[in-house]
Amino acid sequence: MQRSPLAPSVFPSLIPVNGVTLSTLAAGIKYPDRDDMMLAVFEPGTTAAGVFTKSLTAGAPVHCCRRNLKTGTARAVIVNSGNANAFTGRRGDLHVMQTCDAVADTLGCDSSDVFVASTGVIGELLPIDKVLDGIPELYSGLCDDHWEASAKAIMTTDTFAKGATVQTSIGGQSVVISGFAKGSGMIAPDMATMLAFIFTDAAIPANILQELLVETNNVSFNSITVDSDTSTSDTCLLFATGGACNSVPSSIEDNDFSLFRKALCELMEDLAVQVVRDGEGASKLIKVTVSGANTDDAAKTVAKSIANSPLVKTAIAGEDANWGRVVMAVGKSGELADRDKLKIKMGGILITQNGQVIEGYDESLVTEHLKGQEITIDADLGIGSGSSIVWTCDLTHGYVEINADYRS
Amino acid sequence: MQRSPLAPSVFPSLIPVNGVTLSTLAAGIKYPDRDDMMLAVFEPGTTAAGVFTKSLTAGAPVHCCRRNLKTGTARAVIVNSGNANAFTGRRGDLHVMQTCDAVADTLGCDSSDVFVASTGVIGELLPIDKVLDGIPELYSGLCDDHWEASAKAIMTTDTFAKGATVQTSIGGQSVVISGFAKGSGMIAPDMATMLAFIFTDAAIPANILQELLVETNNVSFNSITVDSDTSTSDTCLLFATGGACNSVPSSIEDNDFSLFRKALCELMEDLAVQVVRDGEGASKLIKVTVSGANTDDAAKTVAKSIANSPLVKTAIAGEDANWGRVVMAVGKSGELADRDKLKIKMGGILITQNGQVIEGYDESLVTEHLKGQEITIDADLGIGSGSSIVWTCDLTHGYVEINADYRS
Repeated sequence: MQRSPLAPSVFPSLIPVNGVTLSTLAAGIKYPDRDDMMLAVFEPGTTAAGVFTKSLTAGAPVHCCRRNLKTGTARAVIVNSGNANAFTGRRGDLHVMQTCDAVADTLGCDSSDVFVASTGVIGELLPIDKVLDGIPELYSGLCDDHWEASAKAIMTTDTFAKGATVQTSIGGQSVVISGFAKGSGMIAPDMATMLAFIFTDAAIPANILQELLVETNNVSFNSITVDSDTSTSDTCLLFATGGACNSVPSSIEDNDFSLFRKALCELMEDLAVQVVRDGEGASKLIKVTVSGANTDDAAKTVAKSIANSPLVKTAIAGEDANWGRVVMAVGKSGELADRDKLKIKMGGILITQNGQVIEGYDESLVTEHLKGQEITIDADLGIGSGSSIVWTCDLTHGYVEINADYRS
Repeated sequence: MQRSPLAPSVFPSLIPVNGVTLSTLAAGIKYPDRDDMMLAVFEPGTTAAGVFTKSLTAGAPVHCCRRNLKTGTARAVIVNSGNANAFTGRRGDLHVMQTCDAVADTLGCDSSDVFVASTGVIGELLPIDKVLDGIPELYSGLCDDHWEASAKAIMTTDTFAKGATVQTSIGGQSVVISGFAKGSGMIAPDMATMLAFIFTDAAIPANILQELLVETNNVSFNSITVDSDTSTSDTCLLFATGGACNSVPSSIEDNDFSLFRKALCELMEDLAVQVVRDGEGASKLIKVTVSGANTDDAAKTVAKSIANSPLVKTAIAGEDANWGRVVMAVGKSGELADRDKLKIKMGGILITQNGQVIEGYDESLVTEHLKGQEITIDADLGIGSGSSIVWTCDLTHGYVEINADYRS
């Protein structure tokens, strides 16, 4: 698979997180000659938060993570690529339990402190022997600098590894956040993207960590879409080891906490946009901003209607300034709109107002913008103060190519 | 544009409808060297019914039709292709009024008895002089056998003309229904498909005609989707001239009326499926049947979730029996489902039950079915008695090709 033209030039150098060790392995689950398992182990005392797909046919690992999150503590997360362990019936559930038990035995911890995620083909049984056999080798390979290898091990059709890192502080004490994620099709996350794992050495109680993740997820992974299809495996987990020994925040609104909150938000947005940059077949990154809606939720519905429209996405792929399709997508969203108040811009250039194209509209300026790799579409509904940003990519021959025979 | 591989071999010979005359013209609105205007004129006493896009950015002609439907009577419908007259502001509204007035003057009827429909690019002003100049020539060319020419004149990216005809009876009196429609992108009708015009010589009061159209539209044009994008121009009009002098039905439930009702339903389904057969880039027709849902509406939501999934549609294009994507689409629909009760069939072959793939599943049988041109997907949710059928087509390179530069 060719590397996405929208890929960043290098994988960022992720700062190790005090209390986190990582290991990867080529277990031969589906892909030959590459790592396809990842284990991260945390110091005792680590707290955990998670958001998951809203799919009613969610995979077995998602159910397990939801259960294990109840205690708010974590000692490990184990991940495989190449097989989603979704729609695999009671045997799939059993395989997840066996995996948790084996990791717990190895670490000497409780099974409920082990989290599991799987990504890949839906409906095939996990080769559980390969998974279980891999655990001792994964354990013996743990060290604090396997970040890029871990980001690579969880990839499926991704063409580049996605990571982000930031140093910030809580109450004057320096803390680190590092994380990685994978896409890159079946991306219209309804709680989180397919898989994302974020680690910090900050000390943060589990209930605050969860509140923080829901908030930041909403404007990052829940604000991207590649193809409008929601995965059965969407999982975003955030672990806080406490290794930084910062003063513990008393609530999400704690003043000492504001820098961290902002830094986490930016890191998650960075990872989410990387997922879109690697959207299957993507040749252009599209940022859709909707303002002037009745509410923020209404703005997001309209933004997703634009971002998910195959006709908008193919027009952008063809560098065709067909703004009429943006009008169509606003109209079909079901949210309140008024033809005569709608303003549309592409590349910052005003195209419509008063219910029609502006006088003296010069399409060549918009066409020039569309030749670039980073496209902006702004729709101001002009009826309220709700706003939202959604990122997507264009719909190209590459998408059809990749998905017409994904399993072969 | 190459003719769709799913096209019927010939345009059916439409039976003339007593009280209807038709005419077409090459007015040069957008396409060179082909008819792009159509006028149908009806005898006095004709009743009319209509269903339209639910888009909040609907085109000017849609607003006009909605207004003129209030009287329940009709004398003419005038249609152009190549320009949707949508999002054209107050000048667009004015152009529709000028068109109605000009046709009304020519016929000597009331402007409110004239219906207008436009299809094509959104956001460009209609070349109104060409439209108005064409009316006298259209009028002088009216005759009762221009059916195929009319079906062709309303085409945009359609690769074949779509028509259907049936002879039935009301209370023993023979009556005729003939109609034509056009697609073929931006097809996820929310009240009707882009354009469809159906004519009968039956005598049917306007209120009954409207009730009948809503009922039959729901299981025909409202049950198809090509690309999940809802047009600003969707219009389906049904005209009844009364030329057959049948006994007038007293209600939609009238016993004498049951044959006609069934015949109309079949004719509309026929036209709707023709629109899907000409879906942009379509190489396979897909019939999605959902049963065992809580309600018929829930079944339709699930069926549309499957039919609109780019991942399901690209898998079918690639003749890949990736049924896991059907599971995904059921899960993301938001409707109640139970993994362990869901049964999925493709080509009538049972693939899953009890929450996993069946024992001894032979994928080669499903792959063989997928090599054909008419694909069936059945999902039995196993929790109720609601059911629904939705037709769609696959998502191919052809779709991207056509839409990446539609306007050039």
